[in-house]
Amino acid sequence: MTEGLRVVHERGYGGASVRDIVEAAGVPQGSFTNHFASKEAFCLEILDLYFKDVRAMIQRTLRNDSLPALKRLHAFVDAQIKYLNRIGWRNGCLIGNFSAEASEHSEMIRKRLVEIYEEMRQSVAYCLRAAVKLGEVPQKTECDELAGFLIASLQGAILQSKTERNSVPLERFKHLIFSTLLA
Amino acid sequence: MTEGLRVVHERGYGGASVRDIVEAAGVPQGSFTNHFASKEAFCLEILDLYFKDVRAMIQRTLRNDSLPALKRLHAFVDAQIKYLNRIGWRNGCLIGNFSAEASEHSEMIRKRLVEIYEEMRQSVAYCLRAAVKLGEVPQKTECDELAGFLIASLQGAILQSKTERNSVPLERFKHLIFSTLLA
Repeated sequence: MTEGLRVVHERGYGGASVRDIVEAAGVPQGSFTNHFASKEAFCLEILDLYFKDVRAMIQRTLRNDSLPALKRLHAFVDAQIKYLNRIGWRNGCLIGNFSAEASEHSEMIRKRLVEIYEEMRQSVAYCLRAAVKLGEVPQKTECDELAGFLIASLQGAILQSKTERNSVPLERFKHLIFSTLLA
Repeated sequence: MTEGLRVVHERGYGGASVRDIVEAAGVPQGSFTNHFASKEAFCLEILDLYFKDVRAMIQRTLRNDSLPALKRLHAFVDAQIKYLNRIGWRNGCLIGNFSAEASEHSEMIRKRLVEIYEEMRQSVAYCLRAAVKLGEVPQKTECDELAGFLIASLQGAILQSKTERNSVPLERFKHLIFSTLLA
């Protein structure tokens, strides 16, 4: 699965063929077709595998009640920068890539993406409500709306970093949100 | 070209084959290969065709000196909402879609996307500097940085709207930036 995930992440939903996937995994094509009904079914599983790591990272950051709220949000953004720096900027985020590409070809994947964004939004909103409680952000902050905006904007910054192949757009995102929206 | 643009916009860089493109255009495959060295070359041309319309829209909005600055920015965002509503939310923005997908497969397209984002960023910064001059936003506004943030965030909101297939993320983007960042 991990090698298949890597290939689809690098080449895209349309760009990676079943042959690419089985070659990367070093298994015969028959073993793929025994396990997965289609490339779509496989890609749904790797999306879940990918999001499992994101969810673990969210637990360590946004939902880590032992840290002050804005520090958690900072850690959440830093974790993404660190991750993308490690895997290479050109790959971007599988969730964002699938939103642009696979959501057109697969209704199953599109619906799963909507659920994933909603879960991420709720975690950011959870963290923002803690920030309001601690007085780190203004009382009037619309936590749910701002959380939705931040999740979408983060994906936009990642997409930009993928295109430019450097961290500048993501560092700009971090600077802007903490010096204005969350100041 | 227009029909080819439509097919690639709907199915994606990897999802649309040369056969799909010539079928949609109603021309023989030979006429495609006479005109374009490759799908990559064709997609670079449709990206320019697409951006030509965006540039015209920018002239009518962001760079329209006859309007107050923030009204121009408002008109710029509204024009995108109106456009996406017309073509269908599922298609998203060709520039964002190519950033997620084609930039991996084509260095020519990736470089063109970087230029396109830079041109858009400069137009937003131009408008923001006018807003500073008019006292519509604080004097200390970092126009170039904020412009880069807004362009990336807008792409993120469009990607989200594409996934959810409705205008909610884009309306949220508009509400948030005008009630906080540009208030």
